[in-house]
Parts: sequence; structure tokens; C-alpha cells
Amino acid sequence: MANLIKFAYMKYKKINFDDISFFNNLLGNEFVYSDDSSRAKYSHDETEDLKYFPELVLTPNNTNEVSKILDYCNSNLIPITPCGARTGLSGGSLPLFGGVALSLERFNSIIKIDERNLQVTVEPGVINQELRDAVEKKNLFYPPDPASKGSCTLGGNLAENAGGPKALKYGVTKDYVLNLEVVLPNGEIIWTGANVLKNSTGYNLTQLFVGSEGTLGIITKIVFKLIPLPTKDISLLVPFNSSEKACEAVSAVFRAGITPSALEFIERDAIDWTKKYSDIELNIDDDVKAHLLVEVDGNDLERLYKECEHIFEVMQGFDCGEILLADSEIQKNSLWKLRRSVGEAVKSNSIYKEEDTVVPRAELAKLLKGVKDIGKAYGFKSVCYGHAGDGNLHVNIIKGNMSDNDWNLKLSSGIREIFKLTKKLGGTISGEHGIGLVQKEYMDIVLSKKNIELQKGIKQLFDPSYILNPGKIFS
Amino acid sequence: MANLIKFAYMKYKKINFDDISFFNNLLGNEFVYSDDSSRAKYSHDETEDLKYFPELVLTPNNTNEVSKILDYCNSNLIPITPCGARTGLSGGSLPLFGGVALSLERFNSIIKIDERNLQVTVEPGVINQELRDAVEKKNLFYPPDPASKGSCTLGGNLAENAGGPKALKYGVTKDYVLNLEVVLPNGEIIWTGANVLKNSTGYNLTQLFVGSEGTLGIITKIVFKLIPLPTKDISLLVPFNSSEKACEAVSAVFRAGITPSALEFIERDAIDWTKKYSDIELNIDDDVKAHLLVEVDGNDLERLYKECEHIFEVMQGFDCGEILLADSEIQKNSLWKLRRSVGEAVKSNSIYKEEDTVVPRAELAKLLKGVKDIGKAYGFKSVCYGHAGDGNLHVNIIKGNMSDNDWNLKLSSGIREIFKLTKKLGGTISGEHGIGLVQKEYMDIVLSKKNIELQKGIKQLFDPSYILNPGKIFS
Repeated sequence: MANLIKFAYMKYKKINFDDISFFNNLLGNEFVYSDDSSRAKYSHDETEDLKYFPELVLTPNNTNEVSKILDYCNSNLIPITPCGARTGLSGGSLPLFGGVALSLERFNSIIKIDERNLQVTVEPGVINQELRDAVEKKNLFYPPDPASKGSCTLGGNLAENAGGPKALKYGVTKDYVLNLEVVLPNGEIIWTGANVLKNSTGYNLTQLFVGSEGTLGIITKIVFKLIPLPTKDISLLVPFNSSEKACEAVSAVFRAGITPSALEFIERDAIDWTKKYSDIELNIDDDVKAHLLVEVDGNDLERLYKECEHIFEVMQGFDCGEILLADSEIQKNSLWKLRRSVGEAVKSNSIYKEEDTVVPRAELAKLLKGVKDIGKAYGFKSVCYGHAGDGNLHVNIIKGNMSDNDWNLKLSSGIREIFKLTKKLGGTISGEHGIGLVQKEYMDIVLSKKNIELQKGIKQLFDPSYILNPGKIFS
Repeated sequence: MANLIKFAYMKYKKINFDDISFFNNLLGNEFVYSDDSSRAKYSHDETEDLKYFPELVLTPNNTNEVSKILDYCNSNLIPITPCGARTGLSGGSLPLFGGVALSLERFNSIIKIDERNLQVTVEPGVINQELRDAVEKKNLFYPPDPASKGSCTLGGNLAENAGGPKALKYGVTKDYVLNLEVVLPNGEIIWTGANVLKNSTGYNLTQLFVGSEGTLGIITKIVFKLIPLPTKDISLLVPFNSSEKACEAVSAVFRAGITPSALEFIERDAIDWTKKYSDIELNIDDDVKAHLLVEVDGNDLERLYKECEHIFEVMQGFDCGEILLADSEIQKNSLWKLRRSVGEAVKSNSIYKEEDTVVPRAELAKLLKGVKDIGKAYGFKSVCYGHAGDGNLHVNIIKGNMSDNDWNLKLSSGIREIFKLTKKLGGTISGEHGIGLVQKEYMDIVLSKKNIELQKGIKQLFDPSYILNPGKIFS
């Protein structure tokens, strides 16, 4: 199968004048870009400093146009890489083999908010926060909230099965998708399921497309379920003198019967760097090594204060420092702005590589210790933070003073060690960022040869000419 | 593709003495059954009066044995139908082409309850209620609760993606599955994912197996997530003089921001018949046409009473009668016993056919009215009940005085009309019972030709010799 995929890559056709004419006629010239600056714009996402230029950028406006583009590219063996806001962290939207970058940015309509059924039908180019805002006005809630929620699109969220802090209590993107309109590589259009909360009607194609990173089809409409909006929340910032103790406290919270709406872990370095790059004021004792940021939500404020007291008690069993309780909008916004800024702050500080490790939550302390030990052995520093309640730890490996030689040659072995550890602890190599381009070389660590062979078989079934997002997920 | 499947059916081999010797050697004689009474026992499930005899019944004890059975049957083109407790309602476990009935009944061990991570590893032959009881002792909760929870097995629950009343607040079987050990038709063994709450590592094979009705592989180990056990609940029985009003009230409860832990609809006839077949005492006014059975749960009894008051207010807006509040164990058990007995009571009353319709919940009143209208046109009576909060209505078509001729020849057209209506309302043909044998002729109503073609392609990829549960899902 691997050979078959490689063979497919070799036969792609370069885009020529006739192809451009076809697309100009189909979309109108103003939605076909071949200039250097447009191609540069669509050559990168938020994954490190990687750049792969498309030959052409297309911005269709409706399903029919997408269908015709795919049919044409499929017949002419032109590779297509779908993209949204290009905020991805695994290189999923990079046009590795050139060809067409198909941007869904004009699919930006919230088609229908169905208040009677607590559902919404949207196009994939809608920005996550725009959907949140629109449904909040109707007292409804769309929970998945990646750090990039202000700029990332829902189509991208589906492609990578995005999470975010609220995933802890409310689930990830996949848990809100009811039905999808998808254009298949040959231009055929299907709906995957039905607009229902329960469905036992054949194989679950809906869930097969979620997290498939644009390699099986292009999603053009999404039906999400919504839930009633919780009206109150309180956040707590809990300092610890030991990162391991902080990690151990995470699992204890759940064992005490509490399900917070968010439970984030932030290492000391991450907070310090973030403070440097923002206007956030926060006094932290010298001996603090990590923080947990906890949120509880609901509709009854008194009950939330009780839950906070319960959390206090649990945390004190793990030698926490003085807990900061934030119940005003200003305080809460300030804490969560801090959390959301961590990624960018850590990355602006040095050349880095980010890993999206995930383990059963009680194994977090072991994972963190292991990451530090592996770092020592391979000579790299790491800054860790993430969705501790879900066992999802973002490990940012920092180049710092590491030599270019070590960085380029030894790092991959160090990362393999980290992923072998996640596997040993019952976890895997990506919790919410996807495999894309940069993690595909590590798939063999967590999935058997046969498992990957079946996945490649599915790819071949849906996209026999390998035109959709080639070079991703599988190496 | 359809032709290909039919060709495969034609080439199955009949089981002979050599085959039986092989299985005797592999499992021991006491786990290989070819006598008439055993074959009769495994010839049916709870689907109407259908019977298909296996040639042989095998009850392996471990993954390795399953692997060797599948390898042998695959090489010899012997069809295999996996089964659990045979409580299914769509004929999923009926050995349509004879061959081997592979019972997972000896896979009955709860391997590990991981209290630190709120996870459990089980074998597929464990009875649903046994898992519930085992984890409840540790203050943990496994929510999916089909009516047959006292006898059905978890493997069967996975095969059909079973639900139950609690699915409303807590989700169906698929929402609790983290990772699966599966034996593929050629005997190879894979794990589908990892033991984590978030996973963006390739295609979601885990969800592809859930609801695949034993047609893609045989599940031999399951890792479920668990949640903290809610300690308190209250149930309400709400009578209505109009079934449509009852259905309309369902959606209003959610729009008022309340998420009950169950919200069931029961037509008058269903309750009357159930009362006849049980010792349940309940006085119902003559003009009552339907009931809603509502449950709220949590840990704070005061808050639950407040929620009940809120539900009272909503229900009154739909002209409900006097509401019965059940907060003692005896009262609650009596109400829920009534609900769980409905299916059997309705079915013991007449020859019947059960449909598992599901629509967006606010369309329930339209569905119910439509079912009655179609019944009038085709001359059948129906008794309806089910998980109204999920829009999942079990329609029991009763033969009653319908002639054998009409029952055998006209009924299928009437059912098509009902399913066309569910499709029109945004729904589909099965919410939690699966397609199995008896619904496959209706798949074309809700899924496009291309969608079904892709599903058949997946079947062919996983099971190229079509030995696993042939004749199910696809016609």
C-alpha cells in the first residue's frame, strides 16, 4: 500500500494555462490566485516555520463549485489541499506537492440556528468564535474552544478534531457533529448521516470524516448539536511547588466526584514567558513550579462556590499554595487570556517543536517526569502546558542553546522516546492537533502495521487517485 | 458492488466433519455444539419470530481462539455470525447463511476497573447490568442502559450502538468507547485507538467498529470511559390528553434550559397493555392519551426539586394532567419497571413489527401524527413509545385484525412511508436498534447510492471474503 501511495505522488500534473482558464471560467478571475504573494500566504499554517507553496489558490463559494473543482483535479491528477484559517499545528493544510490550495474562507455563513431542536447548520469557513457568539445570543452553547477560537474555522476544527479547555466537561469537536455534507474526490456529493442525536443506520461515515484532515473529502456543510448555555462560572488559579504534585491533583479532583468545565496545567516557565509578552499582572512566589487553572460552570452560583470549596480541599492534599479565586468578568478574562497566550509566548521565545501528547489523566505526572528525563538525555529543554483534565499535555521542545546539528539530527529520536512513553502509559501521539505532516513519521509507535494498512485502505477507497491532501497522516 | 456481495454468498462452504474436528481440537468438544437444540437456541434473537439455524455453535474463551476460528473460516469460506445475549431487535445476530454462530458468552470478565483514570476494560460478553453494578460499587457510572440491560451484553451494545433512557443526558454506547481490541476476518488482531479521552491520531477506526453489527471484525476487548456516579434522582410521570401535546412538551423542556437524565414517551395503549401483563398499580383517567416519564439526576436533592418545579411549569403550558412525583426507591422502581416492560407487553399482545424511528426531537409530534395517518391509510394500528428526549420513537405496528395477505404484501409499503417521513423530518431509520436483517431493505430511503457504495467498500476492505455476518446492513 505504501508503494501505491508513493507511485500516486509521482504522477501529479503541474498546473498549466488551460487549467487556470478552466478555474477562471468556473469561479471568476477574482477567486483564482496565482501571484507570488497569494501563494506565499497559503504556503504556511501555524506549524513551526514550514512553508510549501501551492501553484494556485482557489476560493470557491458553494458546494457545486467545490464539486466541479474536485472532478476536474481528479480527472487531471492535480493535488488539492483544503484549508481554512491555517491556524493548524501539525501542517495539515500545507500544500506539500503544490497543486491547488482550496480555501473554504468564503464558506462563511451560519445557515440556520434551529432553536427548537438545539442544532445549527453552518458552512466550514465560519470562525469558531463567530458561531459561539451567534448561538450565545439564543442562550445556546457550542463548547469546543481551541486556543485559536478567535481565528480558526469550524472546517479546520473538524479536520483535526479540535478540542480546547471546555472539552474536559463537554467533549471535543467530534462530539457535536451530527451530519456532514461532503464532496468526494471525484466531485460526488453525499450527506454522511442524519440530523439526529442517535443513529444506528450503517457505518458511521460522519465520524470517519471527523479528524481525517481533508484526506477523504471536502466538508461543505456541518450540522452541529448545541446545548443550553451555562450562565455562571468561576475560575481558580492554583499554584504548586512541584509540577508532579500539580499533575497528581488533577486526577484527584475527578476521583472526588467533581467534573470541572476546564482544568489546565501551566508550567512556571510558560507563565513567566507569557507575562513577559503580555500586560497581565500576577505575582508569583519564587518557589512556584506550576499552576492549575480550574473552571467550574453551571447555573447556580451558590453551588459553584460549594464546588470551589470542594476543589480547595482536594488541592490542599497536594500541598498547593494560596488559591486565587476569580469570579468577576475582568479577573476571569485576565486568567484565561493568560492561558490562551501561552502557546504563542512560548513559541516566540525560541525555535521550537510542539508535541500534542495525550495519556490517561492519572498518568500525567509520569509523562511530565519522563519528558524532562528524556530532555536531559537528549539535551533539550521543554515547556509544558495543556488540558491536564483530559491528560492532553502540549510539550514544547525549545531549541535554546542546542546546536543546529543536534536539533536537526538527534531531536527526532528524542521525540520518538517521548511518544514511546505516551504509548506505554496508554496514550497516543495527538490529542487534538492531528498528525498532518509533522507527526506522520511517528504513527508506527502507537498503531500497528495492520491498523495503518486499514487506514490506508480507507484512503484508497475514498480517494483512489490520491489527489486530496497528499502526504498527510501516512508516510 | 451489490453483485460482488451476492457472488460471495454463493460460494460459502457447508461445514463438514473435518471442520468440526478442527474446532473440537481448538476449543475442546464441550465448546462446539452441533446438536439440534443448541442450533435452535442460537437461531433467533428478540426480532419478531425470525429463525435462522447455524450449522455449528462455537463458544471460544479468548482472543487467540477467536483469531484461529476466523482464520480457519476465512480460508475455508465458512460464514460466521457473532452473537452475545441475542436480545437484538433488528436480527443482527441471526445466522442467515448458516455456518458458525460465534457466541462471545464466555468473554464475561470485567478485566480492570481503573479508578484513577475513570476507565474500565471489559470483555464483550459481560452483561450490561453487571458492569453497572461493578462500577457503582466504586461510585462510578456507565450510563448506556438499553431496556434489556439485565440480559444484553456489552459486545451486542457496541454492535448496535445501543442507547436507552439515560442516553438523553449522557450519550449512547459510542460515547463511552475509548479503545477496542478487534479480531479481523483473517484472524489478525488490532487495537483501534488508545485509552484516552481525546484522540486525533489518524482515522477513527474505533467509531467505525461501533455500530458495525459484527460485519467488520469481532470485538474481544473494550476500554470504556466512566463518569462519577450521580447520587440522587427524581422521576415524574406526566399525563396528557393529547399525544401531540406530550410530544410538543418534550422539546419545550430543553428550550427552557433543562437537561433531564431521561425523558420517555408512552402512548396510552402501551401503558394499558403493560398494566395487564404486570403487577403495576396506576390509576389513569379515561381521557389520558399519553404519558411522559421524566427523570432528573445529580447530587443535590434540593436542586433537583427546583428542576422538577421548573419542569412542572413547562408541562403545564401543554395542558398536562396531575403530575406524579416519585422520589422514593419503591415509587421510582415501579415507574421504571413499567417503562422497561412496555416493549415486551406490547409485543406479547399480537403479531407485530417494531420500527426504531428517530428524528430531531422537536419534530416528534409531526412524526407521531404521520405514523397514525399512514396506519389509517394502510389499515394497521400502531403503539408508540420511546426515548422522546432524543427524538427516538419506537413504532410497534400491530397486526391485530389485518389480513395475512395485507400484512405480508402491503406492510412493507407502509413502513417505507413511515421512513420517508422520518427522512423528510431530518431523521433516519434506526436510532439504537441497528439495521441488521430487517431494516436493510429501507437503507436507500435515507442514504444515497454513493453513501451506501462507500459503506460496502469499507465492508469489502475489512472482510474481502464476506465471511463476517453476511446478509446484514446491506441488501
